[in-house]
Amino acid sequence: MDDFEQAKDKILMGVERKSLLISEEEKKTTAYHEAGHALIAKLIPGLDPVHKVTIIPRGRALGITASLPDDDKHTHSKTYLEGELSMFLGGRIAEKLIFDEFTTGASNDLERATALARKMVCEWGMSEKMGPITYGQKEQEIFLGREISQHRDYSEQIAHEIDLEVNRIINEAERKTKDLLTTNIDKLHALSNALLEHELLDGEQIDMILRGEKIDTAAFTSPSNGNEKNGKDTTESTKKEEKDSQEPENDAKD
Amino acid sequence: MDDFEQAKDKILMGVERKSLLISEEEKKTTAYHEAGHALIAKLIPGLDPVHKVTIIPRGRALGITASLPDDDKHTHSKTYLEGELSMFLGGRIAEKLIFDEFTTGASNDLERATALARKMVCEWGMSEKMGPITYGQKEQEIFLGREISQHRDYSEQIAHEIDLEVNRIINEAERKTKDLLTTNIDKLHALSNALLEHELLDGEQIDMILRGEKIDTAAFTSPSNGNEKNGKDTTESTKKEEKDSQEPENDAKD
Amino acid sequence: MDDFEQAKDKILMGVERKSLLISEEEKKTTAYHEAGHALIAKLIPGLDPVHKVTIIPRGRALGITASLPDDDKHTHSKTYLEGELSMFLGGRIAEKLIFDEFTTGASNDLERATALARKMVCEWGMSEKMGPITYGQKEQEIFLGREISQHRDYSEQIAHEIDLEVNRIINEAERKTKDLLTTNIDKLHALSNALLEHELLDGEQIDMILRGEKIDTAAFTSPSNGNEKNGKDTTESTKKEEKDSQEPENDAKD
Amino acid sequence: MDDFEQAKDKILMGVERKSLLISEEEKKTTAYHEAGHALIAKLIPGLDPVHKVTIIPRGRALGITASLPDDDKHTHSKTYLEGELSMFLGGRIAEKLIFDEFTTGASNDLERATALARKMVCEWGMSEKMGPITYGQKEQEIFLGREISQHRDYSEQIAHEIDLEVNRIINEAERKTKDLLTTNIDKLHALSNALLEHELLDGEQIDMILRGEKIDTAAFTSPSNGNEKNGKDTTESTKKEEKDSQEPENDAKD
Amino acid sequence: MDDFEQAKDKILMGVERKSLLISEEEKKTTAYHEAGHALIAKLIPGLDPVHKVTIIPRGRALGITASLPDDDKHTHSKTYLEGELSMFLGGRIAEKLIFDEFTTGASNDLERATALARKMVCEWGMSEKMGPITYGQKEQEIFLGREISQHRDYSEQIAHEIDLEVNRIINEAERKTKDLLTTNIDKLHALSNALLEHELLDGEQIDMILRGEKIDTAAFTSPSNGNEKNGKDTTESTKKEEKDSQEPENDAKD
Amino acid sequence: MDDFEQAKDKILMGVERKSLLISEEEKKTTAYHEAGHALIAKLIPGLDPVHKVTIIPRGRALGITASLPDDDKHTHSKTYLEGELSMFLGGRIAEKLIFDEFTTGASNDLERATALARKMVCEWGMSEKMGPITYGQKEQEIFLGREISQHRDYSEQIAHEIDLEVNRIINEAERKTKDLLTTNIDKLHALSNALLEHELLDGEQIDMILRGEKIDTAAFTSPSNGNEKNGKDTTESTKKEEKDSQEPENDAKD
Repeated sequence: MDDFEQAKDKILMGVERKSLLISEEEKKTTAYHEAGHALIAKLIPGLDPVHKVTIIPRGRALGITASLPDDDKHTHSKTYLEGELSMFLGGRIAEKLIFDEFTTGASNDLERATALARKMVCEWGMSEKMGPITYGQKEQEIFLGREISQHRDYSEQIAHEIDLEVNRIINEAERKTKDLLTTNIDKLHALSNALLEHELLDGEQIDMILRGEKIDTAAFTSPSNGNEKNGKDTTESTKKEEKDSQEPENDAKD
Repeated sequence: MDDFEQAKDKILMGVERKSLLISEEEKKTTAYHEAGHALIAKLIPGLDPVHKVTIIPRGRALGITASLPDDDKHTHSKTYLEGELSMFLGGRIAEKLIFDEFTTGASNDLERATALARKMVCEWGMSEKMGPITYGQKEQEIFLGREISQHRDYSEQIAHEIDLEVNRIINEAERKTKDLLTTNIDKLHALSNALLEHELLDGEQIDMILRGEKIDTAAFTSPSNGNEKNGKDTTESTKKEEKDSQEPENDAKD
Repeated sequence: MDDFEQAKDKILMGVERKSLLISEEEKKTTAYHEAGHALIAKLIPGLDPVHKVTIIPRGRALGITASLPDDDKHTHSKTYLEGELSMFLGGRIAEKLIFDEFTTGASNDLERATALARKMVCEWGMSEKMGPITYGQKEQEIFLGREISQHRDYSEQIAHEIDLEVNRIINEAERKTKDLLTTNIDKLHALSNALLEHELLDGEQIDMILRGEKIDTAAFTSPSNGNEKNGKDTTESTKKEEKDSQEPENDAKD
Repeated sequence: MDDFEQAKDKILMGVERKSLLISEEEKKTTAYHEAGHALIAKLIPGLDPVHKVTIIPRGRALGITASLPDDDKHTHSKTYLEGELSMFLGGRIAEKLIFDEFTTGASNDLERATALARKMVCEWGMSEKMGPITYGQKEQEIFLGREISQHRDYSEQIAHEIDLEVNRIINEAERKTKDLLTTNIDKLHALSNALLEHELLDGEQIDMILRGEKIDTAAFTSPSNGNEKNGKDTTESTKKEEKDSQEPENDAKD
Repeated sequence: MDDFEQAKDKILMGVERKSLLISEEEKKTTAYHEAGHALIAKLIPGLDPVHKVTIIPRGRALGITASLPDDDKHTHSKTYLEGELSMFLGGRIAEKLIFDEFTTGASNDLERATALARKMVCEWGMSEKMGPITYGQKEQEIFLGREISQHRDYSEQIAHEIDLEVNRIINEAERKTKDLLTTNIDKLHALSNALLEHELLDGEQIDMILRGEKIDTAAFTSPSNGNEKNGKDTTESTKKEEKDSQEPENDAKD
Repeated sequence: MDDFEQAKDKILMGVERKSLLISEEEKKTTAYHEAGHALIAKLIPGLDPVHKVTIIPRGRALGITASLPDDDKHTHSKTYLEGELSMFLGGRIAEKLIFDEFTTGASNDLERATALARKMVCEWGMSEKMGPITYGQKEQEIFLGREISQHRDYSEQIAHEIDLEVNRIINEAERKTKDLLTTNIDKLHALSNALLEHELLDGEQIDMILRGEKIDTAAFTSPSNGNEKNGKDTTESTKKEEKDSQEPENDAKD
């Protein structure tokens, strides 16, 4: 990988923390988690292309799946957003499918999925049941000392109907994601194994693995080898699906 | 279009952003969205005349429908406000009719429609069911550090009845708008196609299209051609129905 | 009208804005609105005498009905307050009777009627059902940075019973006002027509119109003519029922 | 009345406002209102002795009933507090009995009665139903910028039970007060008439009127006459039941 | 009583206010109130030993029962806390038993009992029904201008269940206390009478009275007599059950 | 114990407070409380290894159970967190089993268990019933004077469902913990007795006791003896399960 590519990854995904001690068990969990995100991104049409997926810790994340949003996309359809929800949930569902266990590492994924589903209902009118209405007045910048917050301007009963819609949307996304991963469990294993072996995969390599091909291992041995074939080098933004390194609060001393 | 006209449009509708990359698909969605706003404004009697409609991005908007409010109108009837609601919803409903899909681009329209419907119920006594009563005390300017907010001075049950009335009003406006656009779907196609071809239409050109006439393309080729026939040049205010360029939160880096 | 009278009106009712452009339709609506206020003030015994009624815009109002509160009245009976409610609602109900339409111009009337009805229930113990109890602790001046607000010290269920009482009181006032204006619709027409013709009427002229007499038009042609016969010239306060010039929020640019 | 007595009254009851114009009708209402307070104070054993009652406006009050609390009383029994409630309500009920009308003048009485009843339930455990429990944490002085308020630490259902107890306590006091005033309506008339004639009565004169005796009018003609026979001249505190001069908010100009 | 003993009492119980005028009736109520506290402290095993009980006003209290908490006790059992509740309620119940009347003087006792019962449920998991769960997050010191308060992090329904548990715990303590005082009413009379006679009793004297013995009156005549036999002189803390001198708010002037 | 070991314990567990007077009864309660924590940590597989357990007061704690979290663990499974809950509750349940009494000393344990269970439901999606959704928006740092708090963005009904899930999770942990301690009550007695005898035990000594072996008492007599065999000396963090020295609020003077 050449210097430019490394610099770009540093900006896009944070600094590598190779010194961080990760147990073999946790590495495996992380690999399936990231493979879950990346596989969903590949399987659902219309989602942004996956740029890289890695299980080398960067910043506060144990693993990262980075995708490249289209620069010439300014609004998003309901279908696209439902795909996004699936990708957010893909990591956690992969863990559950393989290890039958939940971990604390998915909490950021859940937070983003919940926030997105809530916006679909409350800001973008994408719930048929709740109609083309916005719920809640957004914060308004006022001067120092005044409250800034989302003002709830609707009744308790509507609040509950919103909750039910948010739940329905996420549960549907979960069901669909689970079906997709179950059907493609071979690919999930393949991708996880490749991640455990190589630690970092780019979009083309992922495609090769999903097609059942052997990936060119030479690309990993020579950093100056230039394995970048993606034409969108000038992109300024990526989306990252991270596997958090989140320890429960009670670990804190005292 | 002469310099004066260009300057006026800059003030009324914001600076053009011709450099912004828009995909063909998004251009088409935007064209139907703006055509939906403009067509409703033409079809419902009593609404303010449409000044211009465009799919050239300006400011943060992908498209704009600008109408000219009557200067000598100081109060508004319930009928007029119901028409406004229809125009707010027109863009989104046009998208739904043509593409069977919702996008995030309508969120500002929904926000304004909701706020207007809520005012009809809570400030202007326009819901027969809720009666000639105002709900909520408006913010009062007090000095630094004190709360400024809409004070809810009514019970939870009344809050829910208000919600139901707001929903009813918007749902009725949606139904009416959908009927209007379905009945006039040929005009919607015609207007969208003209927008895709010419990118900017003025009120007179819209009228020509709706009458099935060919519009004078010369007006678009020569900027100094002066295609402005509207006598109300001195207007100081327009209303804009914009198609937002709104990306979901999860696109943000990190 | 002499200089002194003009100065007094300026203080009582705000500066005239004769330059403001008002459409004929809006002038007519305003005339019926103000005539509704003034007629109710005349028909219900015990209300404060009407000093002037006008459809010449002053300050932010399109029209004004100014009455003179008794200087030697320091408390108010329930009966008087119910009359006040009727007068607040008179403008809006006149509009509805004549044009079968509500406008945004009555929002200030509704706000005052609601606040008055709420005080009757919550501060003055005038609802038999809610009893001789005050509801809510009034704001207490404390120093900078501390909350100032009406503290709700009662339960949700009581909050709803208060709402129902407020609704009942206003609905009764509306019913009574509608009956009064319907029975006296000839007088409403007469008063509105006189307003449209003369733009400003004083208390005596209103009386003449209601008695079916011709009013002395000479008074309007010569400003120095001194048509003031009301002995209570030294009054310091008037109540104004205004027809607001209120445009819906969505008219604002951008 | 000698100078010392006048100075004391000024301190106890505020400065006289003899210049304030009061209509005969309002004077009569005030006389019955104050007579209602004073009569209840005399009829219920254990209440503090009435010092003076007057219908001469002082400060913001149209009339005042001043009683002298016992200096050597440091706690109060439930029976005493129930008597207080009756005295608070006495003014309003006298008005209702005589004129069949409520006025805004009793709002301060209602506020104090409500606050007292609420304390009986929430602070002093005097409601058998709510038990020996305090409800709500009282405000705690913390530094600038932090909220100071009564913290509600109980559930909505308990809040409603408290409301019902407060209502019950006040309704019982109202019923008892109404019975007392109805049974002693001759005394109410006598006291009101004496107030209308003399404008100010002291405790002894009230006793004479209630015994059906003629009061010594000489006391009123000569200010230096010293009609003060009450031995507790050194008292530092009185309680005043005032008839407020309270105008509804909507009287305010503009 | 020697100088050292007097100094200690001043620190433990506040400065005596012998000049404060107390009526005989109030003295008697106070005596029974304090005797109620002291008797319960003696009757329930495991409570802290009573150091002194007095009806001489100190600070803002009309009477004080001071007990000495064990220095080498760092946690408290549920049984101990239930005894505390009984002691808090003992004063008020004694008053009720003897005079069949509640006074405002017990409000501080009720406040402390309520706060203790609430902590048993919400912080110490001592309600079997509510389980080993804490309810509410305690205040966290944050910097100036930010809210400090008990954050309610549970639902309304749980709030009500907590209320019911707090009520149950206090009602059980009240029932038990009432039974104890009723069974030992002779001792309550004896203790109250001794208090009325001597005004101040120490732990040993209370024991003598409860055993039916005559107490050594010499101790009261000679201050330098040294009646202190309690070995725990070096204690730094006492608990005081006070009979408040609390006047209802409505006594305040104006 | 050598100097290094002592320094490490000082950092990990706070300064010893050997001078603090503890009654024999309280020492026994503390021994069973800490033995409860330590035994659960040993019995449930996968929990962090116990480093030391002691009944010598340190800081504000009467006793401490310190365990060593794995350094190379960055996320936690649901199974691990359920074990943590059991360990939190182990102290209190041991007390209840042996003395049939609750004390205030477990309040910190309960607080941590409640917070952990709430996070499992609201942040980590570990309740099947509540789904892969986060509840509540976490505090966002905004500038001075603005509210910082957990924003509740869901309805009351969801709030109650969350409560029920939190209760269910804790009640299940309590039941499981009680079963474990009941089944192993001999070991609980053995561990408590050893603690009462030696005051401080390290992990290896605990293991010996649980295996029914005699522990090497020489280790306690010679501080320079170096009884540290745990290889993880370089750990930087421990978790402590403390038995608080918590006195009820009502002990405070005044």
